[in-house]
Amino acid sequence: MPRITPPVQKISQRLHVTQDLQADGAVTLDDKQAHYLRNVLRLEVGAQLFLFNGRDGEWRGRIAALGKKNAIIETEQQTRPQDTPSDIWLLVAPVKKDRLDYLAQKATEMGVGKLWPVNTARTQGGQLKHERLQANAIEAAEQCNILCVPEIAEVTRLQDALADWPQDRALVFCDEAARVGDGLAALDDLKGRKLALLIGPEGGFDTAERAALAAHIETHAGSLTLSLGPRILRTDTAVVAALALLQSRLGDWSR
Amino acid sequence: MPRITPPVQKISQRLHVTQDLQADGAVTLDDKQAHYLRNVLRLEVGAQLFLFNGRDGEWRGRIAALGKKNAIIETEQQTRPQDTPSDIWLLVAPVKKDRLDYLAQKATEMGVGKLWPVNTARTQGGQLKHERLQANAIEAAEQCNILCVPEIAEVTRLQDALADWPQDRALVFCDEAARVGDGLAALDDLKGRKLALLIGPEGGFDTAERAALAAHIETHAGSLTLSLGPRILRTDTAVVAALALLQSRLGDWSR
Repeated sequence: MPRITPPVQKISQRLHVTQDLQADGAVTLDDKQAHYLRNVLRLEVGAQLFLFNGRDGEWRGRIAALGKKNAIIETEQQTRPQDTPSDIWLLVAPVKKDRLDYLAQKATEMGVGKLWPVNTARTQGGQLKHERLQANAIEAAEQCNILCVPEIAEVTRLQDALADWPQDRALVFCDEAARVGDGLAALDDLKGRKLALLIGPEGGFDTAERAALAAHIETHAGSLTLSLGPRILRTDTAVVAALALLQSRLGDWSR
Repeated sequence: MPRITPPVQKISQRLHVTQDLQADGAVTLDDKQAHYLRNVLRLEVGAQLFLFNGRDGEWRGRIAALGKKNAIIETEQQTRPQDTPSDIWLLVAPVKKDRLDYLAQKATEMGVGKLWPVNTARTQGGQLKHERLQANAIEAAEQCNILCVPEIAEVTRLQDALADWPQDRALVFCDEAARVGDGLAALDDLKGRKLALLIGPEGGFDTAERAALAAHIETHAGSLTLSLGPRILRTDTAVVAALALLQSRLGDWSR
């Protein structure tokens, strides 16, 4: 008989905080988070909820005070230890607003450690708001029971990122011009390596960028081009698909 | 030197039609499609565009007439032969409106052959509109250079779908309660098999559904449970992630 156990219970009332968390502590939340507790989660004084900050694991707490200007949560007990943070970097050319929100959420669900927006000649996104990316990553972590929120790096020009690349990290470059099947078998050779994934802009890379990528791959052991199949994928689809391949072959999906 | 060729050129002016396509033919489009050509793609009489219908490949055509009530496209030459349609079925518990649109688009990009909405005890979606799912699949095919639009099956209760399951098709059941790593190696044993993927509702399956799935797996060779890692994924994320695993190990990403 296959093992089909009851489903994992989702905890929807989870809140990311910046403060340290400890036994018998108290955390004071600002007006925005108090509003969220009152009007979105519809909680009242005495209600139980779960807190995490990306460092101290998950804690069960109880609302001790809930006003318009702030809220106080008393922490009771640690319910989960902190996960080891993911070390996967995702370099991605920003897309437009709604789909960028979506992308930050998906990257969090898929266990990215650092989300690094890179500008390219054909990047289509508008002005990129660091705080908005961070808020989307936090929201995904709250909803999906995740304890680690990815770091959001400052936007960098792709060629500047490549020029200063750490030798110990392999770059997996998802290339829509790669031959179908390219890179899949070579992925398995990256076991134990630090990893970064690069998803390009929907208009493709320009000639200078492709030359820089080719030079990078030639001079950095482990870096490779990966095909994501015969169909053109939108950026946010490619992010999830490529991370699924990495996590299942090299990351925490295979443990 | 790694092979880094110029990117594939995207063709944005592609239109899905229902009519047959042939050399020196003419296709009459209705008012909605004429509106789309005029006001969305901003084309005029004489403009070139590409047509596909999921059966006859892709054809280059030219606008011969463009009015408010209809448009006439003269077909000139086939530019791509028809792809072999995908045979992967995706059974998925519907999610709410916007994310269901998204899901239909993503399933199309990832090469699903049949998108089959299944109702479960904890399905959260509202009234499901068959036409809307179809429109989203067509839009994704138009934008992503895809020649095959997935069939949208009628909504079915999960247990009814399982009760009448074809013996020659393996069901890959993405189970959030599976142990991390479960099913990954077994996927490789499904080479050459007809495949279906099942992504459950965000609230999980109920006890009766889990019993039906356990019984299905026990009595259907090849059917298996697959883990999508240690984090809970939203339904639309799970769809892309699971299809990436299937396509890269068994489907058209590995050829």
